Amino acid sequence: MFRTAELGRTISKEAYHEAVPVLRAGLLDAQQLLRSAPFPVIIVFGGVDKGGKIETINLLNEWLDPRWIVTRAYGPPSDEMAERPEYWRYWRDLPPKGRMGLFLRCWYSRPILDRVNDRSSEAEFDEALDRIIAFERGLADDGALILKFWMHLGKKAQKAALTKLEANPLTRWRVSQSDWDHWHLYEKFIAAAERVIRRTSIARASWQIVEGQDKRYRSLTVGKAILDAVRAHLEETELHRRVIGEMKARADVAPQQAPDAPSSSVPPGTNTQVIQLPRVTVLSRLDVSRTIDKKVYDKRKEEYQGRLNLAVRKAKALGVSSILVFEGWDAAGKGGAIRRIVAALDARDYQVIPIAAPTEEERAQHYLWRFWRHLSRAGRMTIFDRSWYGRVLVERVEGFAAEGEWKRAYAEINDFEDQLVQHGIVLCKFWFHISKEEQLARFQAREGTAYKRWKLTDEDWRNRERWDNYEVAVDDMIEHTSTMLAPWTLVEANDKRFARMKVLNTVCRCLDAGIAQAEAAGAMALKSEKLEKIG
Amino acid sequence: MFRTAELGRTISKEAYHEAVPVLRAGLLDAQQLLRSAPFPVIIVFGGVDKGGKIETINLLNEWLDPRWIVTRAYGPPSDEMAERPEYWRYWRDLPPKGRMGLFLRCWYSRPILDRVNDRSSEAEFDEALDRIIAFERGLADDGALILKFWMHLGKKAQKAALTKLEANPLTRWRVSQSDWDHWHLYEKFIAAAERVIRRTSIARASWQIVEGQDKRYRSLTVGKAILDAVRAHLEETELHRRVIGEMKARADVAPQQAPDAPSSSVPPGTNTQVIQLPRVTVLSRLDVSRTIDKKVYDKRKEEYQGRLNLAVRKAKALGVSSILVFEGWDAAGKGGAIRRIVAALDARDYQVIPIAAPTEEERAQHYLWRFWRHLSRAGRMTIFDRSWYGRVLVERVEGFAAEGEWKRAYAEINDFEDQLVQHGIVLCKFWFHISKEEQLARFQAREGTAYKRWKLTDEDWRNRERWDNYEVAVDDMIEHTSTMLAPWTLVEANDKRFARMKVLNTVCRCLDAGIAQAEAAGAMALKSEKLEKIG
Repeated sequence: MFRTAELGRTISKEAYHEAVPVLRAGLLDAQQLLRSAPFPVIIVFGGVDKGGKIETINLLNEWLDPRWIVTRAYGPPSDEMAERPEYWRYWRDLPPKGRMGLFLRCWYSRPILDRVNDRSSEAEFDEALDRIIAFERGLADDGALILKFWMHLGKKAQKAALTKLEANPLTRWRVSQSDWDHWHLYEKFIAAAERVIRRTSIARASWQIVEGQDKRYRSLTVGKAILDAVRAHLEETELHRRVIGEMKARADVAPQQAPDAPSSSVPPGTNTQVIQLPRVTVLSRLDVSRTIDKKVYDKRKEEYQGRLNLAVRKAKALGVSSILVFEGWDAAGKGGAIRRIVAALDARDYQVIPIAAPTEEERAQHYLWRFWRHLSRAGRMTIFDRSWYGRVLVERVEGFAAEGEWKRAYAEINDFEDQLVQHGIVLCKFWFHISKEEQLARFQAREGTAYKRWKLTDEDWRNRERWDNYEVAVDDMIEHTSTMLAPWTLVEANDKRFARMKVLNTVCRCLDAGIAQAEAAGAMALKSEKLEKIG
Repeated sequence: MFRTAELGRTISKEAYHEAVPVLRAGLLDAQQLLRSAPFPVIIVFGGVDKGGKIETINLLNEWLDPRWIVTRAYGPPSDEMAERPEYWRYWRDLPPKGRMGLFLRCWYSRPILDRVNDRSSEAEFDEALDRIIAFERGLADDGALILKFWMHLGKKAQKAALTKLEANPLTRWRVSQSDWDHWHLYEKFIAAAERVIRRTSIARASWQIVEGQDKRYRSLTVGKAILDAVRAHLEETELHRRVIGEMKARADVAPQQAPDAPSSSVPPGTNTQVIQLPRVTVLSRLDVSRTIDKKVYDKRKEEYQGRLNLAVRKAKALGVSSILVFEGWDAAGKGGAIRRIVAALDARDYQVIPIAAPTEEERAQHYLWRFWRHLSRAGRMTIFDRSWYGRVLVERVEGFAAEGEWKRAYAEINDFEDQLVQHGIVLCKFWFHISKEEQLARFQAREGTAYKRWKLTDEDWRNRERWDNYEVAVDDMIEHTSTMLAPWTLVEANDKRFARMKVLNTVCRCLDAGIAQAEAAGAMALKSEKLEKIG
């Protein structure tokens, strides 16, 4: 989940100084419009220590008019607070309509710290998150715009930040023992953070993960996100007001021609300039040039296929199912990799499900329905050549799914995969990545080879034109769905052999782990199941 | 929560036979329209055994065209099912767009039975409910219309139903040992049911509790609810389609005059007749004529006030706060009852908060904000003369709150009160009920007495005109918010002395219970708190 926030994104001094005046002007204008709007803006900052939460809040107070902002950070409850229900202090500080509230170390702090320090069980943790969800949903239902930023640093980057601050006598005071204590608990903290972000990213109050290492990058990212969201919410509120008015009038309005200049609630002269930030994606940091020697490949391939054959038969005997998901660019070599896997298997033990456009029957159902129906009986391997991720890739990019639909699909997919993994199914997800040049070369090769020409369609060329849009969609997909329970494996695939080897290796490793787990736990479950049948 | 479903509601044979043909025609028409609609209808039946679930499903299959309905009930999973994640079988059976699915003993069964039979912990129960919420929300987000009916019987009524079936040789087979086993677990079942209904009554998939005792009543109630919901959803979908179309066109449409006949997606000739059912509310079953002898009252009042004084001082020493909520008809005697309470108290130990229209500052916040701000420090009593229930009473009836707002307020209020009670606050909620005639007499008496005339306003007369609407709102309020943790006390108040005595008695009882609990648990908490401060 945090992989996309450890890419070392930076923004140059020049680009920063060019963007800031535009951003500030936009923010101030938006803040003025907000003052008469019928909703408050609630901005929550969470994340890793030294990820830039405090600096960003300070900067926002500098950029915006601080008279219309409340900023709150919470320490341990005072006597006053302890005598009332926990949320009393948060309710007390909520910004009224037309204002902005910046919240730090707030309702998320105690649940996370309690969990990291083993003061609460997982169930208690979940209960605390449910409380948060109810709180935020209530505010959002009431019209509040809620933005949540998670400022992330990798473990090494956090250590570097702490060390750097300590080395400077002027900033040494900013590092305390508790900072280092937290750093030693980094993995536990990240596990809790993933759960927080997944569970509490509800509609209208979802988390945005921000890479916190570069000050200029994170400042612009947060500032721009706030500006975009406030502008959109102002517009939406205005639209909503009009629709409600219309419904009340119960007028039968025939769609009219769009006028040249759509009317808007924004007064003339208001700054509406849009800020573009350079987009660095997780894919851009993959080294697709990695290769493997042909001889080494031939030898290892046989080893792995033998190992795979053994593992699949063992899994079948134990009833351990597996699901492999293949996604990737057109012509990235998914099909070839799948063939190298099934070559090692008995046809009765697996099925390959190629996912194309849904059938009529499938279109009449929820989009996940057609994947549920393909779940196999225990002990089989199911290979999806493209998958449910189409929702957040092609359907998003081509506009087949509305924004609300693909945005909520992340949570739906995580939930679906949770059910698979919790049922004991081994799940591997592969994204095949090639460079844009390599794709072109492969397309041209296909055109030139008679027996491969059928593989290349007009659609492939069209998709290629939207490469950048797809890259953004892939990055978002990995940010939202590469979870601890079901991580993505990114496959550097310019060298087909390298890619196939990585896939074979990963599948063997995951299957072996699943088998070992089933041998331990499954044996017990089987026993109790038998007892139940007798009883 | 179930009190409103134990009123012994019935419908006469004549009324039933008059309504059924209209209802059936409406249902068949709606079903035809549904066939080309872009959503499925999912209807879930839950409830107490012999509450009429099966009979109702059979009847719906008779009333509707069964070709466009799937009906599913689930037993223990087959081998096929057990080898896949639990929800596979539900996904498999979902109705496609344009169809209706009736579900019995489905995704709610295992969680409830596991909980009732102590096979799962409360945390596991909640986890299972979270799974349900995610499932249903996903379907609803996709456009599905989800209706959930909880068919209720009181414990005695269930016993009577079982006994009656057993007594008849023709129906004896319908009662099994497991029915009686369940009956013996009635209280546990109801506790689990309340949790299910509260947690899984999410927007667009909320439960409707139906009194199951009278066959004619429950059949008409369910049939009418389905018809109304399908009609509304068809209309809403059509409206939504138009709004989306408009947004896409980005046309700036000025509100037009409503034409004489609003266009509609309903073809001419379609049956759109509305069915009215006689409404029996929880209030209509209260015996407001209950009285207490004046001498008895005078004596007991003194006893209770002494007891109350002692309890409040003890509560203060222990840090046990209490909150009393007074709601009721105008002139029902809330003020007089409050004065009889505070007469026994030290002015420093309580505050009375009269709730009128919100201030400007309060209007700029979420409606619960102004109640949060009045929460007192530990050990005090706070008396609300009218309260947050205004949202679902006056604001609902007068249209100050939109339907979506007051409907979601039930869950928000339950959540708020949970936080109070879990914090150790003693919460008593009183609804003062008088007959309409008694209210009139009191209004006239006020008009006739100089020093009371100020108490009577035009608003009182206006509210009186909407008596029936208020009665429906009160019934809904009690159904949704009389929970095990925070039950309502309904006060029969035609006799002021009787009402005051019931209130004093209830407050003393609740305070004593809260004190006893605090003495046990609070002592432990204090200890661990001290240890924490030392550590």
